[in-house]
Formats: sequence, C-alpha cells, structure tokens
Amino acid sequence: MTLADAIGYLAATLTTAAFVPQALLTLRTRDVSGISLGMYGVFTTGVALWLAYGIALGEWPIIVANAATLALAATILTLKITIERRQRRTRRDGGA
Amino acid sequence: MTLADAIGYLAATLTTAAFVPQALLTLRTRDVSGISLGMYGVFTTGVALWLAYGIALGEWPIIVANAATLALAATILTLKITIERRQRRTRRDGGA
Repeated sequence: MTLADAIGYLAATLTTAAFVPQALLTLRTRDVSGISLGMYGVFTTGVALWLAYGIALGEWPIIVANAATLALAATILTLKITIERRQRRTRRDGGA
Repeated sequence: MTLADAIGYLAATLTTAAFVPQALLTLRTRDVSGISLGMYGVFTTGVALWLAYGIALGEWPIIVANAATLALAATILTLKITIERRQRRTRRDGGA
C-alpha cells in the first residue's frame, strides 16, 4: 500500500465515522432545530450515488464506506423529519 | 465520460453542496446545540486528509471537491466552537 492509499483509507474511515457521534447525539437529545433538512436531504442522495458509483466500479472500499455513511445519514434525516412532524402536530393540537 | 464517471461527479457535487444549507442555517440562526462537535471535528479532519490524498495523486476533481467541503465544514466547526464559548461566558458572567 502506498502512502497515498493509506491517507485515502484513513480519510474514508474518518468521514464515515464522523456521523456516528451526530447520530448518537440526535437520538439522545432529539434536538434537530439546528440541523439542516436541506443538508441531510442532499447529502443522503449524494452518498446513495457514491454507493451506486462503487457498485458500478466493483470497488469494495467505496461500497463499504458509503453503505455505512448512507445508513448513518439516513438515520439523521429520518430523525429530523419525524421529530419535527411530531412537534408540529403537538403544537397544532394545543400541546396535548 | 462513462456512466460511472457521471454518477461519481454528480455524487461529489451533491456531498459537497449539501454543506451549503447547513452553513447558511447555522450562520443565520446561531443554533448549534443539536450539532455534534465530535462529528465536525472528525469530519473536518477526514476531509483535510481527502484533500491531501487528492494532492498526492494530482487528481483535480478530488482536490476541488474536498477544498470546497473543507471550507464549509471548517466554517460550521468554527461556529459551533465560538457560539458555545460565547454562551458559556455569558452564563458565567450572569447574562451580562
């Protein structure tokens, strides 16, 4: 493995692992007001395309890293949507 | 350009552009409580390594996409740190 390869693998590991603390924080606190729906909508779509790109090339490192990132980003996106929907419903129903 | 190349370029554009609405939301609202410091610390480091990887390979698409993502992720990380530092100082000084 070249030095460039090693840097690439470390980079891929970090940019995927980074979403673990965000997913855990959001699951724990349900605090999604400062999280951008636009970001997670576009990002999740982009990562799904990275996964398709990896599958098209048959490149396992790209497939594995992006499958993991997709699962984490989709979790955060789902929490953003479901928590805000519940908050809107609660407000509309007078906090019941 | 192959179909796989086209998917790769679209994927890179989306995963970079995704951070624009998050950076704008955070600049506008200063609402950083739900944003994970761990995520942006690790992610910014990972993107800096992707940039180093692109420079090592001399691959301009990797360099350009990651330079843009690095600027956006570093902006969000800086806002997270500076806004929470100011909030802590304000609380400590009795809201002055």
